[in-house]
Amino acid sequence: MIASLLVALIVLLVAAKLGGAVAEWLGQPAVLGELLAGVLLSALPLAGIQGLAWVGSDQVVQALADLGVILLLFEVGLATRLADLVKVGVSAFLVALVGVLVPMVLGCAVSLWLLPGRHPYVALFLGATLCATSVGITARVLKDMNRMETAEAQIVLGAAVIDDVMGLVVLAVVAGLAGQSATAPAEGTVTTLVLVTGKAIAFLVVALALGRVLAPILFRLGARLKVHGVVFTLALVVCFGLSWLASIVGLAPLVGAFAAGLILEGVPFDRLLPSSDRLEDLLFPLSTILVPLFFVRMGLRVSLPSLGRGPLLLALALTVAAVVGKQACGLAVVNRGADRLAVGLGMIPRGEVGLIFAGMGRTLSVNGAPLLGASEFGAVVTMVMLTTIVTPPLLRWRFRHLLPGQPQVTCAPKHAAT
Amino acid sequence: MIASLLVALIVLLVAAKLGGAVAEWLGQPAVLGELLAGVLLSALPLAGIQGLAWVGSDQVVQALADLGVILLLFEVGLATRLADLVKVGVSAFLVALVGVLVPMVLGCAVSLWLLPGRHPYVALFLGATLCATSVGITARVLKDMNRMETAEAQIVLGAAVIDDVMGLVVLAVVAGLAGQSATAPAEGTVTTLVLVTGKAIAFLVVALALGRVLAPILFRLGARLKVHGVVFTLALVVCFGLSWLASIVGLAPLVGAFAAGLILEGVPFDRLLPSSDRLEDLLFPLSTILVPLFFVRMGLRVSLPSLGRGPLLLALALTVAAVVGKQACGLAVVNRGADRLAVGLGMIPRGEVGLIFAGMGRTLSVNGAPLLGASEFGAVVTMVMLTTIVTPPLLRWRFRHLLPGQPQVTCAPKHAAT
Repeated sequence: MIASLLVALIVLLVAAKLGGAVAEWLGQPAVLGELLAGVLLSALPLAGIQGLAWVGSDQVVQALADLGVILLLFEVGLATRLADLVKVGVSAFLVALVGVLVPMVLGCAVSLWLLPGRHPYVALFLGATLCATSVGITARVLKDMNRMETAEAQIVLGAAVIDDVMGLVVLAVVAGLAGQSATAPAEGTVTTLVLVTGKAIAFLVVALALGRVLAPILFRLGARLKVHGVVFTLALVVCFGLSWLASIVGLAPLVGAFAAGLILEGVPFDRLLPSSDRLEDLLFPLSTILVPLFFVRMGLRVSLPSLGRGPLLLALALTVAAVVGKQACGLAVVNRGADRLAVGLGMIPRGEVGLIFAGMGRTLSVNGAPLLGASEFGAVVTMVMLTTIVTPPLLRWRFRHLLPGQPQVTCAPKHAAT
Repeated sequence: MIASLLVALIVLLVAAKLGGAVAEWLGQPAVLGELLAGVLLSALPLAGIQGLAWVGSDQVVQALADLGVILLLFEVGLATRLADLVKVGVSAFLVALVGVLVPMVLGCAVSLWLLPGRHPYVALFLGATLCATSVGITARVLKDMNRMETAEAQIVLGAAVIDDVMGLVVLAVVAGLAGQSATAPAEGTVTTLVLVTGKAIAFLVVALALGRVLAPILFRLGARLKVHGVVFTLALVVCFGLSWLASIVGLAPLVGAFAAGLILEGVPFDRLLPSSDRLEDLLFPLSTILVPLFFVRMGLRVSLPSLGRGPLLLALALTVAAVVGKQACGLAVVNRGADRLAVGLGMIPRGEVGLIFAGMGRTLSVNGAPLLGASEFGAVVTMVMLTTIVTPPLLRWRFRHLLPGQPQVTCAPKHAAT
């Protein structure tokens, strides 16, 4: 078993670095190269090369990739000051709200146009798949470009967290519908809705308020244990703990990891760690290995054959609705000087949550037939993949355009060429 | 699924650090604390606390732990110069040979004494379980004590590699017997034996000879890829690649990882990595998390109830044979000035290979009954656990005694209190 894991890691890491290098060479973000390397790996069977497709579905690789995106958001949280996030709070909230409503309306319109005569829930479910932003791609691109501290990045991050809470509201409604007969209005949905949203908001508020008080005490106590790597291990335990709690209240684990990063702001790591160590530097080797696994695996799951399977027009129309819908977010930015287009582009990627909605639509039956068929599901998958792949080059273009005088920074300064 | 992994990691990492801290506080090696923390976790159900025993059997945790011990031996290989290993080569070979033969003879004697009237193969299988040294514990203790560069450490390391090859010989003979009727001598065993041993030796020779020539070229080419973390990733790919190849030829993956570390001796990392980075420092965060997982999980698998299950006298007699048998290794040391007792103590731990032999004995039937019953198997498990747990304090005692003037160093210097 360890032998197959070693092969999978070798294949994925080599693919990630080769893809990343080609992308950088073409002036594109490394993450685009990692995604496309994954797509290429998934296409190997089409070229007659069998035997490597399993590396993406290996259970251990999946777990390592999930840990990778958790660590990425933890690093992003560590680089973010809560005060800066609060400063853009109103913008972030409005961006999240607009970014949920407008794509949903556009998605419904696309469905009514291209799938006329179908049950109204079809439009509702397809609209819902366009709501939730998947923050991993944007966080990675901006982190690699050293642009995490910009107002635009802070707005997108804040909006992504609020977006995840709003996604829960939509999920509660949709799940309420899916649990009921599709022809009767859902009972008890309002109660579920209040409960679900309340839990998520309570988690975020309590974690941030209590965590920022308790974390420095916890780390001062932990540092008294005179044992190898205790402070670093404790930081990871806090990250894993909040990721787990987030998943318990129904949020994405990476929202918990981001909160963990924010909480550790007040911990005096410079006094707790030996002088030459910074927590960010200690996280670097872990994230260097695990984060690319997440993105190559994301590319691997594109599976080219299934891309063509959905009705092309529906897939493209949903993608356009997804991209255009999130551009409305830019209009909701109230902070002066922030670039509206950059915010809109940062909100484009869609991910797992959209697929969850589409999956629910498949399980729901109306008049004996599933609400969403395989073709509609395929269209949603295509939309998720296209929004993922168009974002890195667009973001890179916009953020370089924003600050034309600055040198191009593609890596954390210390590790520029490791 | 990610939620359960996060809980498992939190439980195991906290247990590891608390156990390590208590052990250090008592003047014992951290690894002993990690092992005992695992034993305590496994005993929670005895105290009526259910629901945490699964953390040790989680498939992803097992994979991470296996990666941990691979990284540990990679680090040890990086800290070892091949020339130093060659200097103690004769000693290492003789130590390995004596360390296989004497415990085997003692184990047979114990079996003939305590299990009279049983088939002669019983004695042979029980003797075989005492042959192979498990190098992880010794490597960890000496690495934590900063004693890897001593002649004693080099002899034990070299002997452990040769020991693994000799283990293959014993395995080929035993597997040949197990594959045949237990009453007829094995056919084709000699051919298998030559093939198996030849492959293993060829792997080591080719990997070391070719690897040391090719590695600098590979890394110079790799470093040309201008992408985040490429040199570090390539080092891990080489480590994983050789670990995989070792498993293919039937050796333990960690022997491949050790060879990978030796190979990278000639790579000019100081020129390929940014000035402030050392490969060892980049590996530190990975191994800080993964290595303790391996040892806590090793402790978890002790499972106190099964410890008592074997016949106590047989278990203790086998343990004594295991410990005393490896002390004969000290007599085989030909390098002057090397401490014979330290070498003998370093060879004590037994591991997976012994359990594999015992497992084979269980599948083999003689006159309709399995060659080894559950009670004999339990005795072997007890022997493995006892040799594992007695070694860290004995090694620490001996190595501190050896160099009484030196300050006690329990951690890599740079990360003394992280």
